[in-house]
Amino acid sequence: MKLHIVGGGSIGLLIAASAAERGDDVTIHVRREEQAEALTLRGVTLIDERKNETYSVKATTSFHSNDDALFVIALTGPALFHMKDLLKRYIGDRPVLFIQNGVRHVDWARQSFPNAHFASVEHGAVRTADTIVEHRGHGQVMTVPSEHESFKRLFERHQTSRLAIRCVNDRTIDAILWRKAVINCAINPLTALLRIKNGELLTNRSAYDLMEKVYTEIITSIPNLKPIVQWDDIVNVCQRTATNESSMLKDVVAGRVTEADFIVLPILKRGAERNETMPTLQTCYTLLCAVDERGMM
Amino acid sequence: MKLHIVGGGSIGLLIAASAAERGDDVTIHVRREEQAEALTLRGVTLIDERKNETYSVKATTSFHSNDDALFVIALTGPALFHMKDLLKRYIGDRPVLFIQNGVRHVDWARQSFPNAHFASVEHGAVRTADTIVEHRGHGQVMTVPSEHESFKRLFERHQTSRLAIRCVNDRTIDAILWRKAVINCAINPLTALLRIKNGELLTNRSAYDLMEKVYTEIITSIPNLKPIVQWDDIVNVCQRTATNESSMLKDVVAGRVTEADFIVLPILKRGAERNETMPTLQTCYTLLCAVDERGMM
Repeated sequence: MKLHIVGGGSIGLLIAASAAERGDDVTIHVRREEQAEALTLRGVTLIDERKNETYSVKATTSFHSNDDALFVIALTGPALFHMKDLLKRYIGDRPVLFIQNGVRHVDWARQSFPNAHFASVEHGAVRTADTIVEHRGHGQVMTVPSEHESFKRLFERHQTSRLAIRCVNDRTIDAILWRKAVINCAINPLTALLRIKNGELLTNRSAYDLMEKVYTEIITSIPNLKPIVQWDDIVNVCQRTATNESSMLKDVVAGRVTEADFIVLPILKRGAERNETMPTLQTCYTLLCAVDERGMM
Repeated sequence: MKLHIVGGGSIGLLIAASAAERGDDVTIHVRREEQAEALTLRGVTLIDERKNETYSVKATTSFHSNDDALFVIALTGPALFHMKDLLKRYIGDRPVLFIQNGVRHVDWARQSFPNAHFASVEHGAVRTADTIVEHRGHGQVMTVPSEHESFKRLFERHQTSRLAIRCVNDRTIDAILWRKAVINCAINPLTALLRIKNGELLTNRSAYDLMEKVYTEIITSIPNLKPIVQWDDIVNVCQRTATNESSMLKDVVAGRVTEADFIVLPILKRGAERNETMPTLQTCYTLLCAVDERGMM
């Protein structure tokens, strides 16, 4: 089947390689001409603990085809919103699967694409070069079943593939997305502001206090998140990813705009709808906005 | 007259040079043997817009003399607290003038030294080398009149010197110290956490919002600070010092412990005594503690 993957980052390349591994016809849409040429010329190399394998893919910086492909949007939140008019025009009513952190894009995407679907990715992946992705910490792609033929085929074909697509119900995917957002809210802003790895949130006493405060603010303000994500879950993620730099820290170090608007803002808004403030999280969010603003100057 | 200055930073060297300029017999107590040797060998050089002048001083890393000198403590808060037992033992009941940011040291110093006095320095000074200080933005040294003979002589001798010591009443010096603490609370933590110069607090919208929020939290929680420091005062300091890096930013960049405990903590505590919280300032403070903790690891 034809798959158009928008985004040449770690998740985009992981999905591209995994789909090509299963024989799908894959086109990757990337921003830089340099990466498009490299991918077309050399293919995408997938590295895991057992093997290095290279798969041939097409790659392009332009949007022009009118085929009946299925789209997978593997862009970060800021990149997605930067491209939203172009994507809307280009994709139209073709089926499209959104894979983003946070929940900010969901309402917009539902309104803009008649055939929009959403997934949450648990896989660990690191892009180590323009054409190389390392698959670390295997996981699942969680999504909701669909009556649409393309989604059905994709989900079936990749149930047993490396991607391990698993269909869950609407409530579950909602819980998964919010759970991930809460965990990201507790971990990412602090690692980015303090420029520390995830594990240091457990060993630096003041950082630990702040992380606990952020978690408490969230579940106090939005009590239906409490059964979805416990304090221990956050500690476990910090432990499991102790030596990782969070995506937000990487963004800050590289001078890129962070995903604060996609991860933190929806949580603050959900609280504000209930007239609740989360002052610690709010302060961290505004500090990140200041960092983002500084990066743009 | 004999003056022992503890601290070889910008303010210590400025006072040492200014006093030597007036013919005082100056000994500077410094931490590093290297700086002590350089100061003893080459003297201290004072640079201002009109001239470079070098004055000979004594400098030492040890505390041993028993003369009837007057002490000036020109250490940062963290350095002062690091040395507090040594200073108490060495200075005893000899007269001592404390020049620190913030107000955290005042109660301790009053209890520990029968002849303690306090001053606030407005001068701008930058130590550009171990033996060189630049005097920028001339100002005054504000303090409270004293019946003690040594203080009287110091204050009289330096009323018309470069130091421009000016005596004000107790209430005024209190207001001056708290005013400076509020201004520092609004400016320093944000510049340090965001790694920006003072002027960027006015041009970065999110940083500006945070600064305004910190100011509002302080004067709402401690209303008697409102007449002492207005919002315009803070904006004016940012404008006047636009290209400066705050001392806290310099500390963070250099991996030194910041003065957060001396500038921010007393304001938070004063609020807590009135059952008021200042969540934005508190979050910035805890983030700085995390940075300090990280620096110590």
